[in-house]
Amino acid sequence: GVGDQEIYFNREFLNRMSEKRTNSEWLAAKQSSPETVFIVFYNLNLLVTSGPDKETASQPNVKLCKLNASSVEALLKKIDTTVVFLGVEKEVKKSSSSPTADEDGLVAWFALNTDEDPTECLKSIDANSFYIKRPMPDLLFLNEDEAGVTAHARSVLAWHSRYKFCPTCGSETRVDEGGHKRTCLREDCKSLKGVHNTCYPRVDPVVIMLVLHPDGNQCLLGRKKIFPPGMFSCLAGFIEPGETIEEAVRREVLEESGVRVGPVQYVSCQPWPMPSSLMIGCHSVALSTDIKVDENEIEEARWFTRQQVVDALLKAKQAVFTMPPRQAVAHNLVKHWIGMNANL
Amino acid sequence: GVGDQEIYFNREFLNRMSEKRTNSEWLAAKQSSPETVFIVFYNLNLLVTSGPDKETASQPNVKLCKLNASSVEALLKKIDTTVVFLGVEKEVKKSSSSPTADEDGLVAWFALNTDEDPTECLKSIDANSFYIKRPMPDLLFLNEDEAGVTAHARSVLAWHSRYKFCPTCGSETRVDEGGHKRTCLREDCKSLKGVHNTCYPRVDPVVIMLVLHPDGNQCLLGRKKIFPPGMFSCLAGFIEPGETIEEAVRREVLEESGVRVGPVQYVSCQPWPMPSSLMIGCHSVALSTDIKVDENEIEEARWFTRQQVVDALLKAKQAVFTMPPRQAVAHNLVKHWIGMNANL
Ligand SMILES: Nc1ncnc2c1ncn2[C@@H]1O[C@H](COP(=O)(O)O)[C@@H](O)[C@H]1O
Ligand SMILES: Nc1ncnc2c1ncn2[C@@H]1O[C@H](COP(=O)(O)O)[C@@H](O)[C@H]1O
Ligand SMILES: [Mg+2]
Ligand SMILES: [Mg+2]
Ligand SMILES: [Mg+2]
Ligand SMILES: [Mg+2]
Ligand SMILES: [Mg+2]
Ligand SMILES: [Mg+2]
Ligand SMILES: [Zn+2]
Ligand SMILES: [Zn+2]
Repeated sequence: GVGDQEIYFNREFLNRMSEKRTNSEWLAAKQSSPETVFIVFYNLNLLVTSGPDKETASQPNVKLCKLNASSVEALLKKIDTTVVFLGVEKEVKKSSSSPTADEDGLVAWFALNTDEDPTECLKSIDANSFYIKRPMPDLLFLNEDEAGVTAHARSVLAWHSRYKFCPTCGSETRVDEGGHKRTCLREDCKSLKGVHNTCYPRVDPVVIMLVLHPDGNQCLLGRKKIFPPGMFSCLAGFIEPGETIEEAVRREVLEESGVRVGPVQYVSCQPWPMPSSLMIGCHSVALSTDIKVDENEIEEARWFTRQQVVDALLKAKQAVFTMPPRQAVAHNLVKHWIGMNANL
Repeated sequence: GVGDQEIYFNREFLNRMSEKRTNSEWLAAKQSSPETVFIVFYNLNLLVTSGPDKETASQPNVKLCKLNASSVEALLKKIDTTVVFLGVEKEVKKSSSSPTADEDGLVAWFALNTDEDPTECLKSIDANSFYIKRPMPDLLFLNEDEAGVTAHARSVLAWHSRYKFCPTCGSETRVDEGGHKRTCLREDCKSLKGVHNTCYPRVDPVVIMLVLHPDGNQCLLGRKKIFPPGMFSCLAGFIEPGETIEEAVRREVLEESGVRVGPVQYVSCQPWPMPSSLMIGCHSVALSTDIKVDENEIEEARWFTRQQVVDALLKAKQAVFTMPPRQAVAHNLVKHWIGMNANL
């Protein structure tokens, strides 16, 4: 990993306790426990409140809206609400005052998603709360703990929202294992014989890479048309079936920029919950330098010098491009190359 | 990577030429070109012939049955045959004698799968050919070039065989982009608005890890009930949504063996086409040593000393366990720890 640089979305604040997913009694008890924390999505848009230092912070700043069982009681009862068990807080609370189901003292977290406006279903909601409209960039302004929980929650919920039907036979499916599985409702479906990935949430591995010039003093960055003006970032692409990380780096760089790549070195990764990618960050060394972009995907790709990159990282006046935000693993890959410390 | 150890399934013998996938004219021309190579699967079971050195080799040894356009003509016409464009040979042949569609001199490869016995459809097939019945271990006896092609082909075909219906709406889908995409046939399906992973082959990232004892001289290996007697291998598990490689290693080791893990180091990866995993191989260092296995998944887990591992790698008489085959990335992870060279 990139040492002490903590990457956004990477913190595992909860213990997933996957062994509890098949314990429906335990899950039911936790769902009605007053200690339990619920977070809510409406059409995969997270319910948040403005952060405490809204006025002073240089960056926008939002907090999860953490609801309790009585607030979400009506929403939980709706048939179209998807419920995912996220895990329990790693820090065990001292025995709670309420002599309820929480005999184990574990504070469970659940995520809920609904496609219908849940406002009327929710009780005692913070007046400042609102649904994030654009996951990018709005999901980048949580604190590290909440970002990690959100990455887990949104990835699984996004899978439920697009995989309601069995891909093997087209039938409807039911949600199992605390929201970490879907089971086909057709008795003779092939997906019920043996273990098949159709039943489990999908994670798409993606390579994202900083390509270094053979001279060691320049790196290759590109921009898509949808990027904000002036921004350049690392090239990236989906790993294909039958491919290694290293080969995917070579193929995607060649496809997108025409540059041939030799050695590839894994640096660090990042879950990216839009909808459910795993960004696998690498450094790699170019064997050629002529650029010919794939215009379907990339608007422009360029070699930038170390100094140009430092200027961009420092947001200096003379910077010739802007960097992706610090929350993107591309930012870490560039910083790692420059050898800058985490506090820059 | 693990240096000069080449890992089975990892060689990229073809250039995938993804830019040709949307060029249906070019694909059609290649499908009828006499230079083109077709490989065939029946129920995802690969058609092969016995290798040349069948009698002498210490290991079984099979070769792809490479068919040409006229051999597969009838099979290609059947509506239930799935066709996947795999790429072109990296080495360009000199201009072929036949003045056909091959103006570019590129030798294309396609993979076909059918659920009905294709024997009657196929013409001029080698009399020694047969369908591999058990992918494991029979798919492990190809040469490196053919193993790489097979990993790509089988992963994509396995996806088609389980994802014929749109997971978003349950409708039927059609095959697009040379077999690298499926498109929902329902006009108003949400999967047609924007880009969604439902349309693309799935790759499941899996962590597989050698856990090193804090004393540096032992490693943790486990066995599943389905393993051959005496065999122990690395622990492994699916990366979950919202999780990093490093966290998945820690979680899976804890779940399966009760051992807590600290630092994690990526070593090398391997596509595993049963059906479509990407095995991400790591070394990691234990923080605790007491073992408590998850009996649902693991029959036994044990610390083995360096000497015991060397004995197993050398298949010595005194070996207390057997290693997974050299074609499994677990083998490479263990060998890499021991510091043995590739030729052992
Ligand atoms: N799992 C996937 N999810 C979304 N798009 C994919 C996926 N796999 C392949 N693609 C295609 O890859 C394109 C993005 O290119 P790249 O990220 O460079 O591989 C998308 O526009 C899709 O056409
Ligand atoms: N993509 C997937 N494909 C198959 N099984 C999965 C998948 N994701 C989770 N699982 C579950 O994981 C179990 C294997 O455990 P592990 O490989 O240790 O994660 C399987 O028996 C399934 O219950
Ligand atoms: Mg890309
Ligand atoms: Mg791509
Ligand atoms: Mg690309
Ligand atoms: Mg496992
Ligand atoms: Mg698992
Ligand atoms: Mg496991
Ligand atoms: Zn089904
Ligand atoms: Zn559909």
